[in-house]
Amino acid sequence: MNRKLKKPAKTDLLAPFALVRPHLSEIEKLLREQVDSFDPGVQPYVDYVCDTAGKRIRPALAILTGGALGDITPDHLKLGSILELIHIASLVHDDIIDGADIRRKVATPHTKWGEGLAVLLGDALFSHALMLSTEFNDLHLSRGIAKAAREVCEGEIIQTQRRFDLTLGRKDYFRILEMKTGALFAAATGLSAYLSGADEETVEDLYQFGLKLGTAYQIYDDCLDLVGTEEQFGKTLRTDLEKGKLTLPILRLLETASPSQREKLQERIIKQEPLDLPVLSGIADYEGAIDYSIETAVRLVEDARDPLHFLPDNQYRDALFTLANYLLDLLRKLR
Amino acid sequence: MNRKLKKPAKTDLLAPFALVRPHLSEIEKLLREQVDSFDPGVQPYVDYVCDTAGKRIRPALAILTGGALGDITPDHLKLGSILELIHIASLVHDDIIDGADIRRKVATPHTKWGEGLAVLLGDALFSHALMLSTEFNDLHLSRGIAKAAREVCEGEIIQTQRRFDLTLGRKDYFRILEMKTGALFAAATGLSAYLSGADEETVEDLYQFGLKLGTAYQIYDDCLDLVGTEEQFGKTLRTDLEKGKLTLPILRLLETASPSQREKLQERIIKQEPLDLPVLSGIADYEGAIDYSIETAVRLVEDARDPLHFLPDNQYRDALFTLANYLLDLLRKLR
Repeated sequence: MNRKLKKPAKTDLLAPFALVRPHLSEIEKLLREQVDSFDPGVQPYVDYVCDTAGKRIRPALAILTGGALGDITPDHLKLGSILELIHIASLVHDDIIDGADIRRKVATPHTKWGEGLAVLLGDALFSHALMLSTEFNDLHLSRGIAKAAREVCEGEIIQTQRRFDLTLGRKDYFRILEMKTGALFAAATGLSAYLSGADEETVEDLYQFGLKLGTAYQIYDDCLDLVGTEEQFGKTLRTDLEKGKLTLPILRLLETASPSQREKLQERIIKQEPLDLPVLSGIADYEGAIDYSIETAVRLVEDARDPLHFLPDNQYRDALFTLANYLLDLLRKLR
Repeated sequence: MNRKLKKPAKTDLLAPFALVRPHLSEIEKLLREQVDSFDPGVQPYVDYVCDTAGKRIRPALAILTGGALGDITPDHLKLGSILELIHIASLVHDDIIDGADIRRKVATPHTKWGEGLAVLLGDALFSHALMLSTEFNDLHLSRGIAKAAREVCEGEIIQTQRRFDLTLGRKDYFRILEMKTGALFAAATGLSAYLSGADEETVEDLYQFGLKLGTAYQIYDDCLDLVGTEEQFGKTLRTDLEKGKLTLPILRLLETASPSQREKLQERIIKQEPLDLPVLSGIADYEGAIDYSIETAVRLVEDARDPLHFLPDNQYRDALFTLANYLLDLLRKLR
């Protein structure tokens, strides 16, 4: 591939979403087909979790990457739907772990049918996705998908294990993010590039694009939990700290606080006392910590975006740029 | 392969276990190696669950099948260890669902580290096993393993879903057993035969051997829950009915009871009233129902054993026979 730098055209921030819409309805069809392949006794449960208004970011990334590098083939769509199934499986299990009753305005599976069934449903989705991955007849793909699935679980394990662990460092935090969110984003872009027959360097560039974008997206989500309003974002916020999840703004706050501030903060975290905005602002340089986190995520997105300049100049490449810019926009709106 | 009938030599019932012992220590080594491939933050958990005194029946079946059809290769051992990892993953999740505190004399993962971590640990083991399966460089194997894993989960889902469901029929019961226990046994024998390069008919024969043996083994376990003594078997018994699991003896009891007996029995099941031996015996033909279940399992094992006659005559083939006979022996001892 010619690695000459090509400037992206200016586009509407919502353009990538319009561009993938027809392909995303193919993804919905594929997901629906999967439901039918389960035992009739299991189908209604699979149907319920596949039929949510998920954003389908991972399939969208696989589709845009395919488009940027040539054609969007049925294999790109298949990859997208497999990664989405793994994502759905991990959400079913995450919601058990977090005790979340509602996701995207509907009752979570464990709330509806009990924890046992939700555990098993996640398992069945996981193993089905990995079974599907063998249909590519390409072991590199099966392996890459299984590896990403394992990383998602490992990232979640480490996160769960290190709740309320005040020795958690920034390096650990980033490792958790890369595993729990980055891995599937990276699989979507990297394996999609591989499917398009891209050269190794381009595959690696796109893998890194997904990894960094996913990590930045998770930092955005972590900041949102602290500063967002529930009306604005339609999800329960201010829950991370309650659960002992130490996210980047909190790590930064602990780092920059005076010893006495730090002690106060640590005590409140350990005792699970409510730590809302006014409380946090009263303890240490809260705004500085949020700004720092946003800045970190912004730098990651900018880094992620750079290698896109080397891709062929087409509307899908531009849409990948715009997707990155869209995240930058979301991040800036948090301030 | 020459399908001439060959009679098995008479052997000590424990011979198969002596025969696989050296190979099983290889399996333990392989499992231990897997631990190292996890993130350091996850290793201690994986180590804990792999280090149990499991019977390693699935690896033993893979090894004996390999021996019966030629050489026991590193791939047979790898297959055995992958299936054991899937089995361990499913036990971690089953114990959450059943609220079991102790397994094989040690605390279960969810008791030790909480449900969340146990859910994720099972997930990581599942996805690791499926990742390992791609190392065969043979998609038929990856697919067969993923399919077996999915069936285990589906079987458990249907079982969970149909707890306390008095309309459960014998056909449903057998379907659950084939999925939740038969599938991994069948993968051990069938895929092992495939690894040995056996012809399609032999692969199918061995697949059916595993499927039926696994199903019969589960019937044994279901009967044991009703008639065994805890001292004798070192596990908590009489828990199936409490949890609404309708097993073959109970299905038979309901079938053969008079309308008034059936009503009494159904009421006790739904109300989760203790249903121990004296109570059951007082209600309907309890012994007849146990006998019937044992007979069903015996016939299954005999059926399973038949095609072994067509295998080459060697000590591993004999050990497969003896393993089947060992299960027959266990079944007869239940009376």
